[in-house]
Amino acid sequence: MQAGKPVLYSFFRSSCSWRVRIALALKEIDYDTFPISLIKDGGQQLAIIEYLEETRPTPVRLLPQDPKKRASVRLISDLIASGIQPLQNLSVLKKVGQEAQLTWAQEVISSGFEALEHILQSTAGKYCVGNEISMADLCLVPQVANAQKFKVDLSPYPIINRINKTLLAMEAFQVSHPSRQPDTPPELRA
Amino acid sequence: MQAGKPVLYSFFRSSCSWRVRIALALKEIDYDTFPISLIKDGGQQLAIIEYLEETRPTPVRLLPQDPKKRASVRLISDLIASGIQPLQNLSVLKKVGQEAQLTWAQEVISSGFEALEHILQSTAGKYCVGNEISMADLCLVPQVANAQKFKVDLSPYPIINRINKTLLAMEAFQVSHPSRQPDTPPELRA
Repeated sequence: MQAGKPVLYSFFRSSCSWRVRIALALKEIDYDTFPISLIKDGGQQLAIIEYLEETRPTPVRLLPQDPKKRASVRLISDLIASGIQPLQNLSVLKKVGQEAQLTWAQEVISSGFEALEHILQSTAGKYCVGNEISMADLCLVPQVANAQKFKVDLSPYPIINRINKTLLAMEAFQVSHPSRQPDTPPELRA
Repeated sequence: MQAGKPVLYSFFRSSCSWRVRIALALKEIDYDTFPISLIKDGGQQLAIIEYLEETRPTPVRLLPQDPKKRASVRLISDLIASGIQPLQNLSVLKKVGQEAQLTWAQEVISSGFEALEHILQSTAGKYCVGNEISMADLCLVPQVANAQKFKVDLSPYPIINRINKTLLAMEAFQVSHPSRQPDTPPELRA
């Protein structure tokens, strides 16, 4: 590893790591990946994103300048990072037990997406909040991927579905994708 | 209600509402309470706190100026708001079922407090991050109250315990306490 280059402790499959990888790609920050297979899930990665935003405001801002729009971005990010992801992460599903875990995951994601779709009705433009990409979009895509993993029907959430597709077409979301990480096993590579 | 005065949709018992009530008290913002007994738990309340911070930086800052210290404050806040609280809130405990819920709550809180105590070893001064009160402290106190409700043994977490006691002695944490809200039932009043 090159001196002074940031190191991301990352797990290819973690939706929380993916959020940060998207931010790094959008900010055009070159970094080394230190793969770790045991990760402490949770919101820690939002703290990293806020830190990146404060120390590297260019080339892309991840939080709008306007306080009300910033609040919308954080509302959506927190809904995903606190209201959905923690309820369907690996450690919780393990506690829930093998038999019940698929139903559990589907229920918590669907109920979260219902709230999210409702919020997006008043905030969304091309992206989650208006027509500028933001931290909310970084949270959305990894969560939709989790929903698909658990076979959640996305048809009741047309706005989520549309924004997700728009974002997945962007380079930053592709290079950061779980299927293209240094620790992605060969059989899962894109 | 007075025109222009902010209204907080609040539930006396919600740890998320309590976080915001502490912020309002510290910011010396006069507000009306609109009690709602059904609340959407989760991180939404951190978005409110960040909004308050950006629009009302005085009389007390809830985020330090230094980006690294800000990241520590957000790390701790997110650990509580995404890593602990969502796993022991009412709707999850309902899903877990009456028999298993006490053990479930104790386990997720203890495991979260272990991580938190470890972080505080390197960040704490008088408060969670150094000697200035911050958003992290607003998250700590309501979560410790939840831990006590579920009879979690706090002796393995001396720093959490000490900071919690220091904070509870402050006016802002007392006026915002669940036992002193307009919707607190008489038998639970302080």
